[in-house]
Amino acid sequence: MASDGSRLVRCTSLPGLSSGAKRPMGVASLASPRRAANQRRRAPQIIEAAARVFAERGYHGATTQDIADVLGIRQASLYYYFSSKEAALEAVCLKGVEGFFDAAKTIAAGPGSAQERLTLLINSHLSPLIDRRDFVKVFQNERKFLPAESRKRIGRWSRGLERIFEDVIAEGVAKGEFRADLDPRLTTLAILGMCNAATTWYRKENVPVSHIAKEFARLALQGIDAPEAARRPRRR
Amino acid sequence: MASDGSRLVRCTSLPGLSSGAKRPMGVASLASPRRAANQRRRAPQIIEAAARVFAERGYHGATTQDIADVLGIRQASLYYYFSSKEAALEAVCLKGVEGFFDAAKTIAAGPGSAQERLTLLINSHLSPLIDRRDFVKVFQNERKFLPAESRKRIGRWSRGLERIFEDVIAEGVAKGEFRADLDPRLTTLAILGMCNAATTWYRKENVPVSHIAKEFARLALQGIDAPEAARRPRRR
Repeated sequence: MASDGSRLVRCTSLPGLSSGAKRPMGVASLASPRRAANQRRRAPQIIEAAARVFAERGYHGATTQDIADVLGIRQASLYYYFSSKEAALEAVCLKGVEGFFDAAKTIAAGPGSAQERLTLLINSHLSPLIDRRDFVKVFQNERKFLPAESRKRIGRWSRGLERIFEDVIAEGVAKGEFRADLDPRLTTLAILGMCNAATTWYRKENVPVSHIAKEFARLALQGIDAPEAARRPRRR
Repeated sequence: MASDGSRLVRCTSLPGLSSGAKRPMGVASLASPRRAANQRRRAPQIIEAAARVFAERGYHGATTQDIADVLGIRQASLYYYFSSKEAALEAVCLKGVEGFFDAAKTIAAGPGSAQERLTLLINSHLSPLIDRRDFVKVFQNERKFLPAESRKRIGRWSRGLERIFEDVIAEGVAKGEFRADLDPRLTTLAILGMCNAATTWYRKENVPVSHIAKEFARLALQGIDAPEAARRPRRR
């Protein structure tokens, strides 16, 4: 992180970021211990405010002043946490994607059939809708505005997550649990697409995430055909 | 349209917009007939340039100067087509959603089983990826930045499209083609979600739309379970 993370140096102590052990530096080192402790305590609030503002207004429609306004602090105080608006976007995107990846990796490497693990993967992918919807939305819609270097970094996380789904699906095909003619790549993109879209309608639809996860897992595994129809050979 | 469409008055002659019969007014009426004809001829190019710029940079990241640059014209000339950047966004969003809606309505009212019509609906929903990907992307990601009145108008189109899918699915349930325990609303959102996400990966994946449509329709109808697995009672 040292060579390419300088823009993020002041927010690396935010919980949930991979290099969470690092202490805030720069401005922080000049502050009184009490003030520094106070700033660390506020870090999660700061990143949440950034996520909310970016999710609502889009990256280009948002200013650091907007984020400061949500928090009721001075714009200058934000620079303790983020060296720039771009750095705030990267921190929000990282937090948006990171939880997904770690949870998915654990599930994929865990016990159970491919069907069972895919069900858990879908559930795990949807659950951050409850408390991290803004982060996920920003990741989905705004990461294209990151500078090239961090876009690449974020892209690697993203492809890693896709790969986890793809491998579990390919394993299910190899073991005869899933259709032999399945395209694991397109199936992964379909499943992630249907889950990711939930960030756009979740709040309006008023359905518990657990219900969405159950319906989506069943849809992915069994489809919507009635069991009798599924047994008949297709006409086309 | 007269009472709430004044901001769009100069672009209502663009092909594909619902009030396409109207002639450009205002600036157009002062131009020479030859110039006016030339401007009408360029209208589709102008709206395509706007779609491309909004899709790449986001609404707030784009300026009318960017659109003019793509076209190699003066920024002032754009005002013949759009009275404002917001009006350009509305025109792009309308064109993004309108084709979907009309095609879907025809399919839903047409012949065939619910399975067959749902397959056609998925195919029809994906096919604009080939030539109208930018419009669809802008509709998906930027319509939240429309002013309230046009956001409402666009929202009605959008809900109308969802309703078409929902009705065909509900009909399939009622006729015993689809599972009796299916939630038509969540199933619609899942299918539209997986199709819509294709705007984000279509260019990278290099798979023909016809193949995506076939795989997605089969996934929605039959799921990914092997036929034997689909026949066995589920363990959970």
